[in-house]
Amino acid sequence: MARVLDAAEVAKHNTPESCWVILYGKVYDVTEFISSHPGGVKVILRLAGTDATEEYDPIHPPGTLEENLKPEALLGTVDPETLPKPDKQQSSPEEEEQGPPPMETLFNLDEIEQVATKQVSRKAWGYYYSAADDLISKNFNREIYRSILLRPRVFIDVGKCDLSTTILGHRVGLPIYISPAAMARLAHPAGEAGIAAACRGFGAMQMISNNASMSPEQIVENAAPDQVFGWQLYVQMERKKSEAMLARVEKLKAIKCVILTLDAPVPGKREDDMRTDNIGKKLPVSSAKVAEKEVETLPDGTPVPTDGGGGVGKQLFAGTAYDLTWKETLTWLTKVTKLPIILKGLQTHEDAYIASLYAPQVKGIILSNHGGRALDTAPPAVHTLLEIRKYCPEVFDKIEVLVDGGIRRGTDVVKALCLGARAVGIGRPALWGLGAGGIAGVERTLEILADETKTCMQLLGVEKISDLGPEYINSRIVEQQIYDGPSGLEKARAKL
Amino acid sequence: MARVLDAAEVAKHNTPESCWVILYGKVYDVTEFISSHPGGVKVILRLAGTDATEEYDPIHPPGTLEENLKPEALLGTVDPETLPKPDKQQSSPEEEEQGPPPMETLFNLDEIEQVATKQVSRKAWGYYYSAADDLISKNFNREIYRSILLRPRVFIDVGKCDLSTTILGHRVGLPIYISPAAMARLAHPAGEAGIAAACRGFGAMQMISNNASMSPEQIVENAAPDQVFGWQLYVQMERKKSEAMLARVEKLKAIKCVILTLDAPVPGKREDDMRTDNIGKKLPVSSAKVAEKEVETLPDGTPVPTDGGGGVGKQLFAGTAYDLTWKETLTWLTKVTKLPIILKGLQTHEDAYIASLYAPQVKGIILSNHGGRALDTAPPAVHTLLEIRKYCPEVFDKIEVLVDGGIRRGTDVVKALCLGARAVGIGRPALWGLGAGGIAGVERTLEILADETKTCMQLLGVEKISDLGPEYINSRIVEQQIYDGPSGLEKARAKL
Amino acid sequence: MARVLDAAEVAKHNTPESCWVILYGKVYDVTEFISSHPGGVKVILRLAGTDATEEYDPIHPPGTLEENLKPEALLGTVDPETLPKPDKQQSSPEEEEQGPPPMETLFNLDEIEQVATKQVSRKAWGYYYSAADDLISKNFNREIYRSILLRPRVFIDVGKCDLSTTILGHRVGLPIYISPAAMARLAHPAGEAGIAAACRGFGAMQMISNNASMSPEQIVENAAPDQVFGWQLYVQMERKKSEAMLARVEKLKAIKCVILTLDAPVPGKREDDMRTDNIGKKLPVSSAKVAEKEVETLPDGTPVPTDGGGGVGKQLFAGTAYDLTWKETLTWLTKVTKLPIILKGLQTHEDAYIASLYAPQVKGIILSNHGGRALDTAPPAVHTLLEIRKYCPEVFDKIEVLVDGGIRRGTDVVKALCLGARAVGIGRPALWGLGAGGIAGVERTLEILADETKTCMQLLGVEKISDLGPEYINSRIVEQQIYDGPSGLEKARAKL
Amino acid sequence: MARVLDAAEVAKHNTPESCWVILYGKVYDVTEFISSHPGGVKVILRLAGTDATEEYDPIHPPGTLEENLKPEALLGTVDPETLPKPDKQQSSPEEEEQGPPPMETLFNLDEIEQVATKQVSRKAWGYYYSAADDLISKNFNREIYRSILLRPRVFIDVGKCDLSTTILGHRVGLPIYISPAAMARLAHPAGEAGIAAACRGFGAMQMISNNASMSPEQIVENAAPDQVFGWQLYVQMERKKSEAMLARVEKLKAIKCVILTLDAPVPGKREDDMRTDNIGKKLPVSSAKVAEKEVETLPDGTPVPTDGGGGVGKQLFAGTAYDLTWKETLTWLTKVTKLPIILKGLQTHEDAYIASLYAPQVKGIILSNHGGRALDTAPPAVHTLLEIRKYCPEVFDKIEVLVDGGIRRGTDVVKALCLGARAVGIGRPALWGLGAGGIAGVERTLEILADETKTCMQLLGVEKISDLGPEYINSRIVEQQIYDGPSGLEKARAKL
Repeated sequence: MARVLDAAEVAKHNTPESCWVILYGKVYDVTEFISSHPGGVKVILRLAGTDATEEYDPIHPPGTLEENLKPEALLGTVDPETLPKPDKQQSSPEEEEQGPPPMETLFNLDEIEQVATKQVSRKAWGYYYSAADDLISKNFNREIYRSILLRPRVFIDVGKCDLSTTILGHRVGLPIYISPAAMARLAHPAGEAGIAAACRGFGAMQMISNNASMSPEQIVENAAPDQVFGWQLYVQMERKKSEAMLARVEKLKAIKCVILTLDAPVPGKREDDMRTDNIGKKLPVSSAKVAEKEVETLPDGTPVPTDGGGGVGKQLFAGTAYDLTWKETLTWLTKVTKLPIILKGLQTHEDAYIASLYAPQVKGIILSNHGGRALDTAPPAVHTLLEIRKYCPEVFDKIEVLVDGGIRRGTDVVKALCLGARAVGIGRPALWGLGAGGIAGVERTLEILADETKTCMQLLGVEKISDLGPEYINSRIVEQQIYDGPSGLEKARAKL
Repeated sequence: MARVLDAAEVAKHNTPESCWVILYGKVYDVTEFISSHPGGVKVILRLAGTDATEEYDPIHPPGTLEENLKPEALLGTVDPETLPKPDKQQSSPEEEEQGPPPMETLFNLDEIEQVATKQVSRKAWGYYYSAADDLISKNFNREIYRSILLRPRVFIDVGKCDLSTTILGHRVGLPIYISPAAMARLAHPAGEAGIAAACRGFGAMQMISNNASMSPEQIVENAAPDQVFGWQLYVQMERKKSEAMLARVEKLKAIKCVILTLDAPVPGKREDDMRTDNIGKKLPVSSAKVAEKEVETLPDGTPVPTDGGGGVGKQLFAGTAYDLTWKETLTWLTKVTKLPIILKGLQTHEDAYIASLYAPQVKGIILSNHGGRALDTAPPAVHTLLEIRKYCPEVFDKIEVLVDGGIRRGTDVVKALCLGARAVGIGRPALWGLGAGGIAGVERTLEILADETKTCMQLLGVEKISDLGPEYINSRIVEQQIYDGPSGLEKARAKL
Repeated sequence: MARVLDAAEVAKHNTPESCWVILYGKVYDVTEFISSHPGGVKVILRLAGTDATEEYDPIHPPGTLEENLKPEALLGTVDPETLPKPDKQQSSPEEEEQGPPPMETLFNLDEIEQVATKQVSRKAWGYYYSAADDLISKNFNREIYRSILLRPRVFIDVGKCDLSTTILGHRVGLPIYISPAAMARLAHPAGEAGIAAACRGFGAMQMISNNASMSPEQIVENAAPDQVFGWQLYVQMERKKSEAMLARVEKLKAIKCVILTLDAPVPGKREDDMRTDNIGKKLPVSSAKVAEKEVETLPDGTPVPTDGGGGVGKQLFAGTAYDLTWKETLTWLTKVTKLPIILKGLQTHEDAYIASLYAPQVKGIILSNHGGRALDTAPPAVHTLLEIRKYCPEVFDKIEVLVDGGIRRGTDVVKALCLGARAVGIGRPALWGLGAGGIAGVERTLEILADETKTCMQLLGVEKISDLGPEYINSRIVEQQIYDGPSGLEKARAKL
Repeated sequence: MARVLDAAEVAKHNTPESCWVILYGKVYDVTEFISSHPGGVKVILRLAGTDATEEYDPIHPPGTLEENLKPEALLGTVDPETLPKPDKQQSSPEEEEQGPPPMETLFNLDEIEQVATKQVSRKAWGYYYSAADDLISKNFNREIYRSILLRPRVFIDVGKCDLSTTILGHRVGLPIYISPAAMARLAHPAGEAGIAAACRGFGAMQMISNNASMSPEQIVENAAPDQVFGWQLYVQMERKKSEAMLARVEKLKAIKCVILTLDAPVPGKREDDMRTDNIGKKLPVSSAKVAEKEVETLPDGTPVPTDGGGGVGKQLFAGTAYDLTWKETLTWLTKVTKLPIILKGLQTHEDAYIASLYAPQVKGIILSNHGGRALDTAPPAVHTLLEIRKYCPEVFDKIEVLVDGGIRRGTDVVKALCLGARAVGIGRPALWGLGAGGIAGVERTLEILADETKTCMQLLGVEKISDLGPEYINSRIVEQQIYDGPSGLEKARAKL
């Protein structure tokens, strides 16, 4: 372990037969490990023989190396003098120095996204910005809120206005929570813990991604005593891994529930993310041919594209279970954890109804199309809310209904709540906030949304979250778009 | 008082501890006053030690200084030679000299706005142009008129066509009045009195803003004997202030009614106005941090943003009451004034209905979303007109219904009247007219609208305002958008 | 009369007190005439003392001078050497020489309009292109055809396809006629006679504008024996003038009907036309003030704008009657002419229905919003067709229904016919054709439309015009937009 | 035949009286042939006296010369040294060398089209890209899929997902087939055989165009034993020609059905294709006049435009029958071939219904508007699918219903199948794939669509093609657009 290696020596080990990488100044032999790498073989081979720290760091929580490599894999340290000098990319020195503007000069979430777009790497941008296919659902998520009108009432004392509410019985300062978006450290070194720090001041709930770039322990470490977290579960094909993780999470008292994600049993096609791997790469035709051979597939041949990569999203997906079913999975899950369960990714009234039959084990559902990242032209949460109101409104009485996707203004928050949502989640906005200004950027994001939400409630003449209802909105245009065919409720009941 | 001071001496008093300002060549010590300044502390401190006349003048009516400062606050006069020379901003010498084109070469209200945009300061533009959030309601206000079609009838003698009508029983030359828009002197020194001068030739009614930049006495001073005015009331938290103002207004015989504004109990978020304070300012991060501390809030913590300003709109808002209610406020108001009452800012049929129950004290209502400046995605007045027609048409018989927002063409005027409005208000167009050409610009604005309205009536085959009705329009597209849910009328009646 | 005058001498007579003009090399004293000039005083004064031929020629039929001036007004001829040399305007020499491309390389009516736009003067463009206010009706006229879908049937022998039909019993080669658009010589010297020459080859009917730039005699002079014309009547305030004109027209056997225009009792506001007078003119403020005084108004004060002009449209309008009514006007007209009557400009089912009650004197109606040139947001003819189908389909049995406005493709023609129109008119396209290539340009316009119409019928599987019907189109989107309120039919019947 | 001719000598024979052309180095006298050339006289005369190989080759299958010319027409060979040197056109040397990017770096069909647009000739682009008139149907074909939403279900094991299905009882690997698009060699020398090679790996069915640029024998030559083909029939006016072709096709066992095309009895107006002939050509006015005389027409005068060409589409059309009818044509066809029949180009529920009455001779129908290339504003296949579901759903039980037009994403495929389509065809995408990268480009096209389709099914929670149904989509917006008038079914039945 005291061995000091030359970078040139390391560089020779760049094949599947002998594969070394440098991480944090140390040299590891990962030859044995590569075939079981959850992110795929290719992504390691591309970095074989080089210092992979910059690529590795933002997407792996601490402890990953220790958990996955045997002690003897650590070969020694690299002589830093022998490493090639990095060159600055994509940003001129002036820009580098300027940095982002003060957060308080940004007035809305779009401006924050614009600043973040300039601050973060192409890779981070591609991962956050991207959505499935033609971004129709991503854009529709947002546009649909604009087609709902508000109905403000006058002559009401609005001197008091309270944004606090409860989620699964836990008091929170805002009806706005952080959705379980992955890989926060791609945006900023403060990462998910930085988001937690920002939430602290607002009493906002944070759902921690299964693919967070920091460990749950790190994220909740500095939480306030009453700060509320949830933990997102992507069930793994190897259930034992998920069970181990659940056991670990359950020890953290700040984490109050498990959010089981259902809307991405296979990865969506996010071209802006996939394109990241093409940037700056000029594949000679021959090497492309080779790449074509190394096709990665799921057991059944699910299409993991042949294009040397697939972006961050595809890498994260490796190992995720695609075989979940209502009874089996929920039976298993209630056995292995005592945490209340929220099901995420429901998009039809039928599934919302079935979920309500699993109460009280299932305590809540999140209507979500995964930010438009899974299936393009999937319906926005507003559609599903209206479908439930039309076909099976009793669902709202049995479980808590949360929504996410497209929230960018306080008026959006209020509209979702008027339609029956208990709270709304923001995913990308939190990451853009982080990218734009670290903790301060997330704080500014929450501050803007909270202020806008409050202003909206006051201008509507509403004092408390619980007073919001459908009489405060005109959603007629949307009602003319939602599903109008036969309900699958009977079929659903019959199946159970 | 004969004391003559050097500008350099004044410049030293630029702190909260000792705060002097130069106004109209005189030097005032405002140290004691600043904490009670309705526009907030910061706006004064920013100008402390300097000649603040240019910023002060267009937004304060005469008498303001006398009313608010003790006599000893006047320290003396400044030696004009010692003042720094102003530099021209934002306009090259040629442009300056050219000035606006002759008003008669402008053919529509958009062209007038374009000319005004070049003539007025960035600050004035920001205040007039801005609307809440994403300008959805502002733009929808206008677009909705375009989606209503006209139904012209033929073979009708249109040799006579009369635009005159009555508002609250007072004869007016046009069914078009000036909405109570604030701060006219930001656009042009002629200010609100200039608007009055322009209205005189057309017999048009003018509603004077509570936040006018001239005193009511100045505005009505040169009115014709039969010229009609209204006075807008933003009730102040300190009711005594409002009462004093009402008493003063009641003495002016030209003022025929009080327009109580209800659609802005808290300020809307007008980003183009807020941005004014960022322009040309390069806050060092440290000073921004300081600014963050000086957060201004309403008693209940209503969000007055932390971003060094908030624009003209936020400043004007200070002191406005947010605790109005139907019974208490109307009881108080009818006690303290004998002027007929118009309620402004109703946006639902429910509130229109309740208002009609307060007749005859309440003589009229103005359907308005505050030019889209309060709550974004609030409904345009056309929606509320159609809602009333659908749910409680009897309202039209009990009180007069006026509308504003989005009127830019004579066809817009006619459409609103066909739907039941007695008259329509224009706010921004009057200010743009003033900005483009002073009195002549407002005259041109009214002339264009009057001509277009007359042409429209003639081409429809209608001779008198009172003959306009729904059979002359096809509003089917809009009817498919308006609120279709359960009416809150029962609830409203029960509450009374 | 043999007197030869210097241009410099003529130039001195440029006031209302002594006003001379040069026309076709001759000098006239028009001092006495100017106050009765139908186009207004100002337009002559602007040209006083100069050679006005270029402005005069394209808009006055031959004989105008003789009819309006006393013989002694002719003072002599001008010495051509003393006239100032004209300078080429708005086109570089190359462009001038290039000329338009061969007509057969133009594939659709838009391309022809583009070519014409480059060929014709700014004034002609302004007059032809312009429409009321914001061009909403003009553009909607066109867009609405695109929202109607066709329903093609298969397995039909389309070897034969016949475009011929009848209008008022006269056989025509196409279901497409030339609308009575004014001032063809503004586009091309061939003028209305050139349009007639082009129609000859297609058997297309031509409606001659009341404001044609050639006399009816000239226009029909070279017509084929079976060529069909109509003559448009704008009734004049001085009915005698109209009667004289009708008597003159009735002598021309080619003219088969009178088209009484009803949709423009006052002139619409066509800003692109009005702007013509501003081009290249830099009014000093003082002269603008003067212009403001010379306001021209109709007896009742109808707004003829104060802006030094008003464009071609406003000039043509002078003298037109605004006091027509069903009974009086039709009684008068049937007395003074034996020609069958078509009423043009109906825009509601109510008026279509009333017109049908005047059969058989009234033989046809033209559903038209005047090409969007009269009242902006007036309904397109397709709306009125669908209104008639919905409220009073019997109209189609009693009178022939023609339509115009927005026709640019053969599919548009077919759709209008499927909805019940007997034929469709084209106005601007004929003028653009003339502007692009003279007679050949109009021929190309008709050829394209005829070819497209035939292709459309064949692809629908329809052999004869009379076989077209609503089963060949899907107009559902439009049906959801048309007027749905109470019909005024009862009221209309009661009034008669 | 051993005669060697100078190019200069050949060049003299460039008139209808003596017309020689060079093809593949040989010189032919085609004087006698030109009047019977299916593509028209002009297209040959334009090339008379020159080497026509480049124009001739990509659009004529091998054997064409032998079939159409007498042996003595072959005069000899040309001395290659005497031929003028070709000059590169439209592409700089760098571009030429660069070539297209590796296919696997292209992520969707739009990117492939973009690459192909750069690779193929202007002529090929014009032919493939063009559609009728204003491209409204072409664009609507695509947009309509975007207005249908998906309804994904959760908690379903998606480990297995099978894209295979059957068409007319033949097992195919994908529910996606290649539409019979003409002239593949315009895009790439691999031509239709290249498309077949690409289909082989996916088990995709290919429909061979009647106007393929290779012979059917060539196309199926290297097919896999179970590879499935259809052959498209444009019935010729000379039925014998069609009969001969059918006899020849029937010998190829890989060809399983005849696709009789019905939606283009006359050629549509494809301006981008027609414009090809104008490019780079500067017609002097005189020659244009000559061209005008040589008008080509069908017997009844069907408009074959006079504009020196008409593009590839018009040339291919020559000789196509326009007199097909249900009974006569189907009786004839079932007599002359034993292959099952698919009818292509149905666009109404009425015709779909009639077709179903001709089962079992007619085994399938293709709902198609010919890629928007025949009649602009014809309905997209989705409309016709919904019409059938509404008026006569029994059609789905009697015959197989295929659709084409606008498919660009896997979600489009799934939506069409949910609405009842058995499979979907792609036309342009296959040609763009070929143009972008030859066989590899078509493979990439199919790979992308197959992957996207599979991902979509998995995210919907569907395992087999046969499980797809209307409950997985929300097509409400489209349902509000489809034909709602009286059905012509009664009339259709009565006629039979």
